[in-house]
Amino acid sequence: MKVEIGAKNCLYPMPTTLVGALVNDKPNYITIAHVGIMDLGSISLGMGKSHYTNAGIRANGTFSVNIPSTKMVKKTDYCGLVSGKTQDKSDLFKTFYGKLKTAPMIDQCSINMECKLIKTVDFPTHDVFVGQILETYCDESVLTDGMVDFEKVHPILFVMNNRSYWKLGSRFAKAWNVGKTLINEPVSEK
Amino acid sequence: MKVEIGAKNCLYPMPTTLVGALVNDKPNYITIAHVGIMDLGSISLGMGKSHYTNAGIRANGTFSVNIPSTKMVKKTDYCGLVSGKTQDKSDLFKTFYGKLKTAPMIDQCSINMECKLIKTVDFPTHDVFVGQILETYCDESVLTDGMVDFEKVHPILFVMNNRSYWKLGSRFAKAWNVGKTLINEPVSEK
Repeated sequence: MKVEIGAKNCLYPMPTTLVGALVNDKPNYITIAHVGIMDLGSISLGMGKSHYTNAGIRANGTFSVNIPSTKMVKKTDYCGLVSGKTQDKSDLFKTFYGKLKTAPMIDQCSINMECKLIKTVDFPTHDVFVGQILETYCDESVLTDGMVDFEKVHPILFVMNNRSYWKLGSRFAKAWNVGKTLINEPVSEK
Repeated sequence: MKVEIGAKNCLYPMPTTLVGALVNDKPNYITIAHVGIMDLGSISLGMGKSHYTNAGIRANGTFSVNIPSTKMVKKTDYCGLVSGKTQDKSDLFKTFYGKLKTAPMIDQCSINMECKLIKTVDFPTHDVFVGQILETYCDESVLTDGMVDFEKVHPILFVMNNRSYWKLGSRFAKAWNVGKTLINEPVSEK
């Protein structure tokens, strides 16, 4: 039985990220889970216009997207609770820089993506910043055969509806593969 | 120890969706996991320009975003393996329509978001369609106290790196809450 629940966004869970930017020459980190993938090499960040970080992303044309682990949930949540306007968050993590020099990254996060701002899409209350990934840094400990293994990353998944953080479960099927058995079979189920 | 792995997109896992559109007056469904949230009420779909569905989204200015469960993984994967150009996918699911009349939705998916196309962002190889959610339909069975409960939805999470589908794990912390203990505490960890 279908029920209408209003215009409710249910595109969850989303990966929780810490976005890094230089604001007034200092590293600042903000929690963002309203993210997206545009094409293979680019990431979008849906960021409320009131945020302190937005000016830094515009000024430098760079930012980083860092993937915190479930162990970092307190600090991750904290970065979404307090604004850089009133709280200096530059000391919260060990910061490092890559090729761009203006995209501060978090050493404690096992994955860091260094991005160049390529588009800003304007929404009434949000700036959507689109970054092209220029380089990805990761801890050797999350690699399996040279590939990032999400079982080792322990990402924090976010669900807006009831404001909650979730763990990643188990891998259970291969993409572009598990559906092959249906090719050339009658699959109607109207 | 950090290693550079090239410009690798690691913004995963992402929720796997089935996007519905009318193409040449017939319902068509395609698997899309390169999705995003722009602002609270809108969703982006990063869709390769070669896809059959894109013309239908443009023609009608509408589409649906349906959330399949892990039980539907074979059909979900199948919709990403075969193109509507060569295979009629209109019979694959029981289709229903909502307010818009031109956004076919999948009865078997527990969550269906009916969207109006509000922006198309052009990328070299991809059309990024941005839809405003006009109405959300869901199975009563996935609600807890009138709210969508993702523990009951069993979404399919997608990781590109090793082309895999994953389950959602357990809820483990409250957002905008678990980090409160760090407010007014020294949290430097440089």
